[in-house]
Amino acid sequence: MSTATQPFAAALDTATGRVSPQGPLQERRLSDLEGLYADAAAWRAAVDDGDPLVYTVSAATVPEQAGQVPFSITTIEPGDVAGELYMTKGHWHTADEGEVYVGLNGKGGLLLFDGDAHRWIDLSDGAVGYIPPRWAHRTVNTGSEPFRFLAIYPGAAGHDYERVLRGGMGARVIRDGDGRGYEVRAVEAGT
Amino acid sequence: MSTATQPFAAALDTATGRVSPQGPLQERRLSDLEGLYADAAAWRAAVDDGDPLVYTVSAATVPEQAGQVPFSITTIEPGDVAGELYMTKGHWHTADEGEVYVGLNGKGGLLLFDGDAHRWIDLSDGAVGYIPPRWAHRTVNTGSEPFRFLAIYPGAAGHDYERVLRGGMGARVIRDGDGRGYEVRAVEAGT
Repeated sequence: MSTATQPFAAALDTATGRVSPQGPLQERRLSDLEGLYADAAAWRAAVDDGDPLVYTVSAATVPEQAGQVPFSITTIEPGDVAGELYMTKGHWHTADEGEVYVGLNGKGGLLLFDGDAHRWIDLSDGAVGYIPPRWAHRTVNTGSEPFRFLAIYPGAAGHDYERVLRGGMGARVIRDGDGRGYEVRAVEAGT
Repeated sequence: MSTATQPFAAALDTATGRVSPQGPLQERRLSDLEGLYADAAAWRAAVDDGDPLVYTVSAATVPEQAGQVPFSITTIEPGDVAGELYMTKGHWHTADEGEVYVGLNGKGGLLLFDGDAHRWIDLSDGAVGYIPPRWAHRTVNTGSEPFRFLAIYPGAAGHDYERVLRGGMGARVIRDGDGRGYEVRAVEAGT
């Protein structure tokens, strides 16, 4: 019996953020983002106070292998840690592979970092964000509802989360004083 | 000055089928589909009678290079040649790379062929079609309005149209007698 991946149809439920048929479903709580928020004390307090869900990744049934093209919907909940908005952990690809993000609903954006400069791309209202090879990437919910996007990437891309933990993303996305806007604030590399 | 591809935001205009900013825009008229329709006489008559536009591909500004992930919107017009529905030329990838199609609007589907068996995936209503490596693929407008979909593929995939011209797609998509439905009709390989 062949185990080669077969063609298939999938449905994207943009209201729930689920891909169907669904492969791995990954839930990341605030405790999974240890070391990533600037205010470690505020992060610890929120973890101790219920450890809220920050984001969920619903992946299609496509293997992460060379030649395959996996896709997934990520849902980031609204919220912040001492003003720093809810976000994904962020990662580098371990191979020189790009990625495409398509905004589905809610307000949010894509923070990119090449180890030197950062970039910000708004993914609200169905915008597409292009991630070239050799740019770390993280997404951020900048609104008050769940923010969802579709990700499509080469199966050989690989994920390196440690390098973001060590070297940061070059900027932090902070809620504005009035709580309705946000600022992408440059920070020293590694912080 | 570095010529490396930079991160960028793109807008998908689902009403017009244009990606913005736009890279190459490719228009395929019926004359470009020589040898692909079963009824060559009907194809010739329609080419002589105005050579209608069959489909348009609006590509993003992403190079077709290894590591990059190009994307594009294809718009297939409604129509048929002696009952065989308007379609793309269809191609094999020259590298073992898959692809992802996301239906945007209109009615249509994805015909796949591995050289032996064919498959059909309906892409209407926002459905996603997964094209594994080593499956030829062609899209077909099965409705009465333009059919649009977003394609995302590894930049190293490459396109082989000749092999479809020689070996076919294993099936043809034919308008039903009442003109409102369609049938995916298996045919001998190479026809």
